Amino acid sequence: MKKWKVGILGATGSVGQRFVQLLENHEFFEVTHLAASDKSAGNVYGDVMASRWKVSNNIPEYAKKIKVSKCSPSDTPGVNLVFSGLDSSIAGEVETEYAKAGIMVISNSKNHRNDTDVPILSAEVNPGHLEILNYQATPGKIITNSNCTIMGVTITLKPIFEKFGIESVVLFSMQAISGAGYPGVPSLDILGNVVPHIGGEEEKAEFEPLKCLGKLENGQIVPADFKISAHCNRVPVIDGHTVCVSIKLKKQATIEEIKKVWNEFEGEPQKLKLPSAPAKVIDYREEIDRPQPRLDLMSGNGMATTVGRLRKDTVLDFKYVLLSHNTIRGAAGAAILNAELIYKKGLNKAG
Amino acid sequence: MKKWKVGILGATGSVGQRFVQLLENHEFFEVTHLAASDKSAGNVYGDVMASRWKVSNNIPEYAKKIKVSKCSPSDTPGVNLVFSGLDSSIAGEVETEYAKAGIMVISNSKNHRNDTDVPILSAEVNPGHLEILNYQATPGKIITNSNCTIMGVTITLKPIFEKFGIESVVLFSMQAISGAGYPGVPSLDILGNVVPHIGGEEEKAEFEPLKCLGKLENGQIVPADFKISAHCNRVPVIDGHTVCVSIKLKKQATIEEIKKVWNEFEGEPQKLKLPSAPAKVIDYREEIDRPQPRLDLMSGNGMATTVGRLRKDTVLDFKYVLLSHNTIRGAAGAAILNAELIYKKGLNKAG
Amino acid sequence: MKKWKVGILGATGSVGQRFVQLLENHEFFEVTHLAASDKSAGNVYGDVMASRWKVSNNIPEYAKKIKVSKCSPSDTPGVNLVFSGLDSSIAGEVETEYAKAGIMVISNSKNHRNDTDVPILSAEVNPGHLEILNYQATPGKIITNSNCTIMGVTITLKPIFEKFGIESVVLFSMQAISGAGYPGVPSLDILGNVVPHIGGEEEKAEFEPLKCLGKLENGQIVPADFKISAHCNRVPVIDGHTVCVSIKLKKQATIEEIKKVWNEFEGEPQKLKLPSAPAKVIDYREEIDRPQPRLDLMSGNGMATTVGRLRKDTVLDFKYVLLSHNTIRGAAGAAILNAELIYKKGLNKAG
Amino acid sequence: MKKWKVGILGATGSVGQRFVQLLENHEFFEVTHLAASDKSAGNVYGDVMASRWKVSNNIPEYAKKIKVSKCSPSDTPGVNLVFSGLDSSIAGEVETEYAKAGIMVISNSKNHRNDTDVPILSAEVNPGHLEILNYQATPGKIITNSNCTIMGVTITLKPIFEKFGIESVVLFSMQAISGAGYPGVPSLDILGNVVPHIGGEEEKAEFEPLKCLGKLENGQIVPADFKISAHCNRVPVIDGHTVCVSIKLKKQATIEEIKKVWNEFEGEPQKLKLPSAPAKVIDYREEIDRPQPRLDLMSGNGMATTVGRLRKDTVLDFKYVLLSHNTIRGAAGAAILNAELIYKKGLNKAG
Repeated sequence: MKKWKVGILGATGSVGQRFVQLLENHEFFEVTHLAASDKSAGNVYGDVMASRWKVSNNIPEYAKKIKVSKCSPSDTPGVNLVFSGLDSSIAGEVETEYAKAGIMVISNSKNHRNDTDVPILSAEVNPGHLEILNYQATPGKIITNSNCTIMGVTITLKPIFEKFGIESVVLFSMQAISGAGYPGVPSLDILGNVVPHIGGEEEKAEFEPLKCLGKLENGQIVPADFKISAHCNRVPVIDGHTVCVSIKLKKQATIEEIKKVWNEFEGEPQKLKLPSAPAKVIDYREEIDRPQPRLDLMSGNGMATTVGRLRKDTVLDFKYVLLSHNTIRGAAGAAILNAELIYKKGLNKAG
Repeated sequence: MKKWKVGILGATGSVGQRFVQLLENHEFFEVTHLAASDKSAGNVYGDVMASRWKVSNNIPEYAKKIKVSKCSPSDTPGVNLVFSGLDSSIAGEVETEYAKAGIMVISNSKNHRNDTDVPILSAEVNPGHLEILNYQATPGKIITNSNCTIMGVTITLKPIFEKFGIESVVLFSMQAISGAGYPGVPSLDILGNVVPHIGGEEEKAEFEPLKCLGKLENGQIVPADFKISAHCNRVPVIDGHTVCVSIKLKKQATIEEIKKVWNEFEGEPQKLKLPSAPAKVIDYREEIDRPQPRLDLMSGNGMATTVGRLRKDTVLDFKYVLLSHNTIRGAAGAAILNAELIYKKGLNKAG
Repeated sequence: MKKWKVGILGATGSVGQRFVQLLENHEFFEVTHLAASDKSAGNVYGDVMASRWKVSNNIPEYAKKIKVSKCSPSDTPGVNLVFSGLDSSIAGEVETEYAKAGIMVISNSKNHRNDTDVPILSAEVNPGHLEILNYQATPGKIITNSNCTIMGVTITLKPIFEKFGIESVVLFSMQAISGAGYPGVPSLDILGNVVPHIGGEEEKAEFEPLKCLGKLENGQIVPADFKISAHCNRVPVIDGHTVCVSIKLKKQATIEEIKKVWNEFEGEPQKLKLPSAPAKVIDYREEIDRPQPRLDLMSGNGMATTVGRLRKDTVLDFKYVLLSHNTIRGAAGAAILNAELIYKKGLNKAG
Repeated sequence: MKKWKVGILGATGSVGQRFVQLLENHEFFEVTHLAASDKSAGNVYGDVMASRWKVSNNIPEYAKKIKVSKCSPSDTPGVNLVFSGLDSSIAGEVETEYAKAGIMVISNSKNHRNDTDVPILSAEVNPGHLEILNYQATPGKIITNSNCTIMGVTITLKPIFEKFGIESVVLFSMQAISGAGYPGVPSLDILGNVVPHIGGEEEKAEFEPLKCLGKLENGQIVPADFKISAHCNRVPVIDGHTVCVSIKLKKQATIEEIKKVWNEFEGEPQKLKLPSAPAKVIDYREEIDRPQPRLDLMSGNGMATTVGRLRKDTVLDFKYVLLSHNTIRGAAGAAILNAELIYKKGLNKAG
């Protein structure tokens, strides 16, 4: 199979930079276009980003020389697929424009997540939801991934949901500053501090897992029917969202049984050996004080979900802690994994 | 009434330093003895602490000149009462020794908290528990305050418990490093990181509020009968424990009703105008992103509990966030307030 | 003497908030006007600042009720003096407008600092420079204070300069994030990081102390004639600029002699017992690892300069470390102290 | 050439962990022994380190199974060379014991650095100093690397020293917490703070570069004859020491000439293509605000020295900022590079 030519929309932003980094020398994709705002367009990416590149290590050589395009199908000719890290103020419209132009959009933006014919795809969790692409009216299809906080949560819920059913979930996040993009959170607000509110986050956290775990019925995704309550907090951590979860199940389970379903959990990405797929989807650690962002962030190259402290809960049934890399597994990496799945399954007509 | 002469046990430790600071020029108490380990004893406090004083501002002048005593009744003659900030490795034994010697012990240590005839006293919450002192066998009585995380939680639960009853509570803490004392948490473990475990903390968080809210029956404190589930986390904040709470009530309530009982909540310390009593016990803030340690820590001179974000919970009934100063309200300040209550009510025979 | 009515220009910004806080219940001044941008003007300060107040503790009650004015003399009638915490993008023009309208301006902004007839006044260092006000053409006079980093440096240099002369200074700053205002430094740039550059800071650091220590000759301030080299760095500290200084003197001195001139240093603010004057201008600490922002920030209510580690320098003559509170002594507090000096000396005709 | 069998002394400490990590799958060396304190000895490394491994990513598989030895030649039979990350309280004696037993010691400890017949080797800077091994009396030879702060400084000084001569240097460090090992710096001392003192560090910083840049004469290393003045500070950064340098040269130079000698600087490690050698020894960045720990730490896999902001100095001649990874280039990585040089040049008889 030959490589697809891909573009990155919003290539100068935080998520865009991760796309640029993670797509260097990719086995399936060749980045031919980097698209951004009109004021960046026309200049070479290396110049545009000289003082704006915020991911560690340098701008990849391949990207430095690319002339930045506008975020419009006519300005990114020849691409088979675009990755979108666009700001939500414009993502909805631009992505629709690409879809209408027959170009598949793999989006990290929230705008289309609640559309009933757009999947919130987590490649290991709900690959079956790709069927719904058939119901999308546009020639190009739109696929989103979930919010950064929710990604790891949904992964840990999936095997429990399948095996034991879920009655309810109370979750509490401690989210990294990179989740807010750049410039994002002012340092005066977060250094040595905790902010117990992130705009719109709790709403997403209480809905998106239900959609990911939902069923496809009559061309619509019907969300799973349990309840989630979320407390979302910002903490002074650079990368890595930590989430404490209390969960009530439908059927009885033991700690060992839950560890077992987590341990055995794998999805199509693992079976198909997709380039970005972590060998172990869920990396359970037995140490009493893990996961921790500083130590576990890069498990599976930032694509695994690290879990620990599974124990009885006196109010619900069980509780545990999970960590996932919010800008890799929770954003650009998840989108790339989704695209790899599409590529391998040949689901993109433009591909 | 004349001032009581008081001693501070464990005066060189973190909590001890706060006692030394907060008792400067106290209206009811005169610090006559500072007691610490044998190796400090015999030296002047100012010299012992030259490089160990970690509270901002200087060592109070009054304390500098006091010669450090051993933690033994015979080495602290003439005191009417001692405050104990002793390490739990020795607190149990030393405090009992003082009680046997007829000296009242106001302790911040955990050792006697689970004794059925020792109150975990929070001056606004359960002053009635002081009756149990009559059942203590020793001539000197022992009074503890609760764990630093739990203090603010119990204060917010009290008026709800009285008015609406409580079915269950799920709580998630983000605790400051000062809660671990000094040297405490190594910086490599917490800078830019979150540690989802604090030894013994969840056990205390799931029990102490029940005891504080319990009833005195037949010379015993019978804990309240609801369930608490706690997730305790360490975050890179210097002072101030933030706790997210989800709560299920026995009776129906509205958000406005809960705010009203919080707003109107006051206890004996307020009625008696005790020196350390905050004017408002619960400081509810309407801003969407409060409380925050950096902004709200010193509300009521560090003695108020700041609360915010009361809202509906999809799984339990309501959820909210609270903050309290862990080394003031959660430790030394709480103990001093307890002592002030005792003083004003004349409950110390040695006084 | 009766109180002067004063206004605060830029009252919603970081420095403005400090002015509002520090002028609560001031002995000499009554804040009658709070002026800010046109979009804030017309609304009550308490509402404007509800989510923008970033100084710990609440907005003072007196300020909450004041209706915000525009930054124009006609919109702040009746004031005897204004404090300016305006952004440098507009400070120059607005301050001149006030001066022309006959109102004295005590400014924390940089715009007029380099004017030869405007003093960079540090009340203990160069009160004699107030003479130059006679040479200002406008009916209202403009007085600035120095850059936040430089304030403490100049204070430590002053008694050395007087007694031993200075040949050269190499200084290295570690500056707090509050120095950049709000939103200021993005957290992604500074959390767990150090940024070895602050725009325009080194230029100010290499000039302003020379002007402060300069002589008044023929209606002009002639800067002192030694050389300063500055390295300015941003560090993840909230408040408090720490500066390491290496210094070469003109005359021989011993460590004890330098400590002595520091220890004995006092200025008019101390003699006149001005309300904001620290009892000790320079607070020298003998501990090996001081000053530190966390422990020494509030020395003299944030108005003292804490110094430590005076020792021999192998390349120049001596080296030491100093700390000063950048938003109190280095900004609003310094301006207020300057105004207090003016008030007490009766130097404001409009007063 | 066949691989050498190597041991790691102090394998459970901070530097030891880095050795374990960096020597995984090494081209020249096979780790056969991990030696630590008597209380760890006898247990398998994976078990000993379960809760003590503090480097990100997991303990390498190869190391997990090794049974920990005592730090004694008789307990580590068959090794050709040992890397020492021992604590200075015991390093001197243990290393000497190994040398006497005929085993080469590549040490990161300070104990032997001041011995006149022991080189402080920085592989690109002073490989010629290896000649002095001939003068060491013991059958096994001891080679040290410099202090973590000094490593990068010396690398930047070397090409300047060669080409223009150096008259004097004033340097200011902002050092990461990992430099103090584990548990090292208590979080209460450094979170949101700066500590302007690190025990013994300034003395090393003022001497070690002189020795590295010194000449070998009559079996002794004669230090270079310029003066260094150092201010050493601890800052809340995890890894990466940043140093600001002011320098006075013997001969005239321009900014471009200095950049040129830095840019062209390479040493034997580059010529021999040693596995740990960075392609570019000095990575000069033109951006105004670099280097920064967060962005530049891993340049050359943590083995390059990143430099920026070369500019005129008003007191000395030039100033600049540098960054190097204190636990890789400044410790374990430097020692391994030294060992690679020895290996490639065949300088170890036991090899």
